[in-house]
Amino acid sequence: MKPIGPIPAGYAALDGELAIGGKKASELVEIAGRTPLFIYSRNLLTHRIAQLRAAMPERLALHYAVKANPFGPVLEHLAPLVDGFDIASGGELEMAGAAGIDPRRISFAGPGKRDAELEAAISRGVTLNLESEGEAARALAIGERLGIAPRLAIRVNPSFDLKGSGMKMGGGAKPFGIDAERVPALARDIIASGAEWRGFHIFAGSQALSAEAIIDTQAQTLTLAADLAVASGAPLPHCNLGGGFGIPYFPGDEPLDIAAVGDALSRKLADLPEILRETQFCIELGRYIAGEAGVYLCRIVDRKVSHGETYLVTDGGLHHQLAASGNFGTVVRRNYPVAIATRFDAPVEEEANVVGCLCTPLDRLADKAGFPRAEVGDLVAVFCAGAYGASASPAMFLGQGPAAEILV
Amino acid sequence: MKPIGPIPAGYAALDGELAIGGKKASELVEIAGRTPLFIYSRNLLTHRIAQLRAAMPERLALHYAVKANPFGPVLEHLAPLVDGFDIASGGELEMAGAAGIDPRRISFAGPGKRDAELEAAISRGVTLNLESEGEAARALAIGERLGIAPRLAIRVNPSFDLKGSGMKMGGGAKPFGIDAERVPALARDIIASGAEWRGFHIFAGSQALSAEAIIDTQAQTLTLAADLAVASGAPLPHCNLGGGFGIPYFPGDEPLDIAAVGDALSRKLADLPEILRETQFCIELGRYIAGEAGVYLCRIVDRKVSHGETYLVTDGGLHHQLAASGNFGTVVRRNYPVAIATRFDAPVEEEANVVGCLCTPLDRLADKAGFPRAEVGDLVAVFCAGAYGASASPAMFLGQGPAAEILV
Repeated sequence: MKPIGPIPAGYAALDGELAIGGKKASELVEIAGRTPLFIYSRNLLTHRIAQLRAAMPERLALHYAVKANPFGPVLEHLAPLVDGFDIASGGELEMAGAAGIDPRRISFAGPGKRDAELEAAISRGVTLNLESEGEAARALAIGERLGIAPRLAIRVNPSFDLKGSGMKMGGGAKPFGIDAERVPALARDIIASGAEWRGFHIFAGSQALSAEAIIDTQAQTLTLAADLAVASGAPLPHCNLGGGFGIPYFPGDEPLDIAAVGDALSRKLADLPEILRETQFCIELGRYIAGEAGVYLCRIVDRKVSHGETYLVTDGGLHHQLAASGNFGTVVRRNYPVAIATRFDAPVEEEANVVGCLCTPLDRLADKAGFPRAEVGDLVAVFCAGAYGASASPAMFLGQGPAAEILV
Repeated sequence: MKPIGPIPAGYAALDGELAIGGKKASELVEIAGRTPLFIYSRNLLTHRIAQLRAAMPERLALHYAVKANPFGPVLEHLAPLVDGFDIASGGELEMAGAAGIDPRRISFAGPGKRDAELEAAISRGVTLNLESEGEAARALAIGERLGIAPRLAIRVNPSFDLKGSGMKMGGGAKPFGIDAERVPALARDIIASGAEWRGFHIFAGSQALSAEAIIDTQAQTLTLAADLAVASGAPLPHCNLGGGFGIPYFPGDEPLDIAAVGDALSRKLADLPEILRETQFCIELGRYIAGEAGVYLCRIVDRKVSHGETYLVTDGGLHHQLAASGNFGTVVRRNYPVAIATRFDAPVEEEANVVGCLCTPLDRLADKAGFPRAEVGDLVAVFCAGAYGASASPAMFLGQGPAAEILV
């Protein structure tokens, strides 16, 4: 039997079923009208923000990275809870706009911004995290044409990376940001141009579970920001320290110790060099805010045995859960936290594979895991589905289409 | 410098640009109105079918697997050229219906068919390739309720697999089909039920480039079909031999020798055991028909250098080209065939990385490959984009949305 990942805190059984927001899984499916279904919890989102506020220094602003989960009601729920939003495309700008988010609270990073996206962002007062000298020139030209001073920050490609992170965004040659040694010259040009100088965005990696690694990276980030500000010859109005806070997905993963991260960052921010004294610092989190607040429910449509192995075949699959299937940025497939939602407090009775409805061997949600005996009609829950699930999966694969989504 | 995969036959330069269907890449973008853009070639689809007809035995029917590319105009173009269509969901049934395909030419395989999908298929006369005894019982019950004799075949999980295939669909425990030893009992039950008995679907793997492996698998498939037919006590009306014909994607890949496959199959079909003499055989191909007939075009929006490496940043990416980015069923990333479409006949001048516009290091379309020097505004072509491209990628990731698609 292979282990499954740890089920996040905040989920309990009600009458034997997984409950979310006080409602049983079967009730939630009835409300949504169908499976497969993503359910996001208001309470868990709110609770996570409260945990972060309690752990992080007061002067640190908290941004939400829309890419993690752009579902409208999630954005609306988070709007009063966080200090800013980070977007990665013109499409996300529209989503944020539809959720009523003030564009002046938004910053836009992404290596391939088109002119139309730059124009939409500049005209609405969004801060651009510039990814290259070429993009800076295009943004300044568009600002001039529009008669608007664009709000410009520079995304820095740091020479260090975030140790143990799932995705390295710094350290060596990268398509993201501008190599640190070229940043001061560009910053001086931007300041001289009359644009509104917004500072730096320094992102070294994502999905790290080691507080030590994040503390180390944040310390290096602050040193780099100070050095670059001095070399740029101007105080730094704003500095996005990146994110990188991971969540446990796999067997043996331990939650990140955010208290330790917050303590270390508080000490750093209390002892800043002169040039950073007035700087507004933020961290940018997506997965850490939304990931554990979401559950994916699908229904078992067949139970079958092949060569002695049991298969629970569901109406869901990798078209909604690409990462959980092991096909997105992972080399060795491991089991996410998965459970039989309609038998949530029942003991393990058998070993089974949970597969999706797609005609491909890649479509596996749990591999040789232990479950209570489940039958056709039972609901399967995949946890950690609140980030990089619905929007990061090939929903149209094999003609399936998107899952339903609700916030409860 | 890392090599790129082989550019498929049928693509040439016109005025220095990649041309498809007699039109230059830049003209095609103008026609479609935007990038990123998938272009599928009528000529190459037609030519590929003609090659297959010439190579395969005359009595062998040719089916198209809709999952490879469900774009409506592609289905309409193929409708008069192939003998049947294979679908994998109720969604694909709707797509085939919208393309005017007679449902009696369609068969439906897939391990997680819902009751609503079974009902839609049975009521329209689609053949169901049954994946389990449980699904058989559901199909028979629905047929009885509707007063229709369902058209039923059994998908067999063979004990052999397709050697060297990219996706193994047989050999050992699988979620697909029914283990061969249990097939005769179910076949007898289906025949006794009064359903229309349609025979077997035996699919052992996909994306194989070795004619020898396919010949070997087809021989084993015919032996298994004969054994199962004898054990079922009835002649076999129909037998889907599966597909598995691969296309070259990567450096060093050689095209499949379909003449050798066709010769071997002709000899086999000329010397069939009694019980298969009247059987209608088909092969089911998706990738082999559509894959090389499609090209993905995206535009360079930035050209940048980081630590001495050149990055061509495009407005496309893994949200349309998940497999080309190396994130779908591959362990080691290798370069697909990629070219600068607007400098198609220019010599290699530099080493560059082609990346997408997404803010993730996974979004890479070519890694350290050799290209003519390309500038902002140039078009990049990714070949082998006709199958498992647009529909098999997470189009909504980071708020991007689907690419345009045209058939020319």
